[in-house]
Amino acid sequence: MNLGKVVGTVVATRKDEKLIGTKLMLTQPLNIDLEPIGEAIIAVDTVGAGIEELVIYVKGTASRIAARKTDSPIDAAIVGIVDEISK
Amino acid sequence: MNLGKVVGTVVATRKDEKLIGTKLMLTQPLNIDLEPIGEAIIAVDTVGAGIEELVIYVKGTASRIAARKTDSPIDAAIVGIVDEISK
Amino acid sequence: MNLGKVVGTVVATRKDEKLIGTKLMLTQPLNIDLEPIGEAIIAVDTVGAGIEELVIYVKGTASRIAARKTDSPIDAAIVGIVDEISK
Amino acid sequence: MNLGKVVGTVVATRKDEKLIGTKLMLTQPLNIDLEPIGEAIIAVDTVGAGIEELVIYVKGTASRIAARKTDSPIDAAIVGIVDEISK
Amino acid sequence: MNLGKVVGTVVATRKDEKLIGTKLMLTQPLNIDLEPIGEAIIAVDTVGAGIEELVIYVKGTASRIAARKTDSPIDAAIVGIVDEISK
Repeated sequence: MNLGKVVGTVVATRKDEKLIGTKLMLTQPLNIDLEPIGEAIIAVDTVGAGIEELVIYVKGTASRIAARKTDSPIDAAIVGIVDEISK
Repeated sequence: MNLGKVVGTVVATRKDEKLIGTKLMLTQPLNIDLEPIGEAIIAVDTVGAGIEELVIYVKGTASRIAARKTDSPIDAAIVGIVDEISK
Repeated sequence: MNLGKVVGTVVATRKDEKLIGTKLMLTQPLNIDLEPIGEAIIAVDTVGAGIEELVIYVKGTASRIAARKTDSPIDAAIVGIVDEISK
Repeated sequence: MNLGKVVGTVVATRKDEKLIGTKLMLTQPLNIDLEPIGEAIIAVDTVGAGIEELVIYVKGTASRIAARKTDSPIDAAIVGIVDEISK
Repeated sequence: MNLGKVVGTVVATRKDEKLIGTKLMLTQPLNIDLEPIGEAIIAVDTVGAGIEELVIYVKGTASRIAARKTDSPIDAAIVGIVDEISK
């Protein structure tokens, strides 16, 4: 799993039917010092994450499992909202 | 999932039989400021995307799922047409 | 499998129900000279690893097998605590 | 999928048994302006591509699917010969 | 499958019970010119490979099959010892 920050939302009415009902969140990957790394991705929210929230996201098969839609074209999903990081 | 922009089409009559009937769209990956990042890829269109449209695309297994052709040599597919991005 | 070092923990009360009860450990990938490589990831601990411990971690399907939760959105798991590396 | 140009062939009589019968083509990745990008790769030809031809190639699982050899050590395959690119 | 060289061993008494009895070998991936590529990984030995030996290793599901432990958290396994490579 990876650390990220929700930085926006994406609305797309014309989309794959299996994406209907999903919330598409722009998610900026972060390192453990909470600095941005690489480009933002679009992840399906499965836990009610809001803008600016620190989140845990997964990619690949785990993301389809998280969305409970293993036959959908999802490749990233938010699976947790971070309360605290201790190092 | 990732943000992209359709910048062209590719026609290839001699191709893998499992690609027959697919629309091959040249897709330029974008960051959330809609600036180009990296090289354009060829993605199978599954939602009727047109040239210049902002799209959502997936890679890997999710792209074969999107094309409903899990046994085809597809590794990128357009799964949504962006109406709006809010940050 | 890969070498890593536990560098912290992540607490997330609001998370996918299938992650409830899992310990989320910030894990820094290491090369065989025990130097950090790439960014830390979040791995589910399955063997009681503590902060600063050298560990073995797996990714993808193997991580869901390690957590004995093949239907959970896990994509990395700690499966061993290193006693000794000989080269 | 990606754009490329066939720039040569590779012959390896003694190779992994699962590669026997495959045509190994040196393929130069191209950007959409047909300029070379990065290093040439070795791709299995599955559509009869010839030297100098513009091709579409895939990597990873999709390439093993293209070669109809999902249990072979193939990680790149040519799946189409480009007739036309329109931007 | 990939080429590699055994460069060390890892001992971990506290580990997933399904890894008990496996030999964990530090394996350096090699290209066809036997030059190191990327970072060493930990692979389960299934053929009695020794330090410095040139080996063939597999990743993912194939590695669990090789170890005859499909329900174990293994994601890399040595499946052959190279006698000769000729180009």
